[in-house]
Amino acid sequence: MPHKSASVKTIPDIVVGRLPFYLRTLRALAAEGREITSSSDLGNRLGLTSAQIRKDLSYFGEFGKQGLGYNIPFLVDQLRRILKVDRVWEVVLVGFGDLGRAIAHYHGFHDRGFEIRMVFDSDPAKIGQSLAGFTVDDMNAMVEKVRAAKVRVAMLAVPATSAQKVADLLIKGGVRAILNYAPTTLNVPKGVAVQNIDPAAHMQHMTYYLEP
Amino acid sequence: MPHKSASVKTIPDIVVGRLPFYLRTLRALAAEGREITSSSDLGNRLGLTSAQIRKDLSYFGEFGKQGLGYNIPFLVDQLRRILKVDRVWEVVLVGFGDLGRAIAHYHGFHDRGFEIRMVFDSDPAKIGQSLAGFTVDDMNAMVEKVRAAKVRVAMLAVPATSAQKVADLLIKGGVRAILNYAPTTLNVPKGVAVQNIDPAAHMQHMTYYLEP
Repeated sequence: MPHKSASVKTIPDIVVGRLPFYLRTLRALAAEGREITSSSDLGNRLGLTSAQIRKDLSYFGEFGKQGLGYNIPFLVDQLRRILKVDRVWEVVLVGFGDLGRAIAHYHGFHDRGFEIRMVFDSDPAKIGQSLAGFTVDDMNAMVEKVRAAKVRVAMLAVPATSAQKVADLLIKGGVRAILNYAPTTLNVPKGVAVQNIDPAAHMQHMTYYLEP
Repeated sequence: MPHKSASVKTIPDIVVGRLPFYLRTLRALAAEGREITSSSDLGNRLGLTSAQIRKDLSYFGEFGKQGLGYNIPFLVDQLRRILKVDRVWEVVLVGFGDLGRAIAHYHGFHDRGFEIRMVFDSDPAKIGQSLAGFTVDDMNAMVEKVRAAKVRVAMLAVPATSAQKVADLLIKGGVRAILNYAPTTLNVPKGVAVQNIDPAAHMQHMTYYLEP
């Protein structure tokens, strides 16, 4: 669920939220050796209508030619630029339990614009541990280290009970985007984006549609 | 991103998708000992306007009394009923790599309506392993075992390259809701719900709003 403070521009946040899936699909097409696609092709792959895709992309410019479709490498470049992942963002990961470890091991971030550079935990048993190429640092040093490195993006994999406190520290250190894995809603000031990953919420979204 | 096949009812899918967050917040309020809340209180906690919350809830009935607010235990019961998590759904988890293991270890599902009952992998080195109370089963037996147990809900934590194939098998076994952790869009028939967990996509959604 997008946080309302994220929706300050005129482009609907829900449209922005679909762009990463367009980009992901276009890159998969490119990996298959494809050079051209169409809104109906993209729509089929994404479970959306072609009209929706044309409308979403039209917010950002003219990317296709009538009857000729979209040039995939061009549209990939444009979407990477629009989403600002034509660079690599340094990321701070907080929390090195089972979930934090799985996140640290995950290889799918770099290729999509993100590199975990710092890992913090408050558990003395975890501080100093090296795993997956990271050394876990003391959360007490987090604000200073995040600020010194000018890190703007964080992943929060701490228990719900400490998530707000840790988020406040991250923001104090200059973080402006938080991927929140804790099952609690964060209160953040304007100008800070939050996205929530709550698998149980996604599951409940689906059971609504299930016949028992 | 919701799959279009999920949006067959008249209630907007985006509204349905917010209900689990309302429920989560109401339960947190109940855990604090609160009995009554208001749409503005809920709105503050959720980063939404009170008008949005009143409108969303009005799709499902009259839950509050003008000037008296919402009775929390009552609204919790109603939302659990609406989302069909006033019961516990058995879940099949496919994929027992780092991510699958973290999912299996996660304790936040049962309390919200889900219990992982089966774990499958295709890696002979993992089949037969016991961890976190589960014994990893052979994916070759999955369709039959899922069908026999009438499992309707699955979590997919396999690589993107095998996700569609595994999803097809799950659907063959009777699964109707798939939480897809693989960074690829699944093609599923009507009547099957898919929700995607793609942390990199969420991160890209946020970097759109960042000033470098």
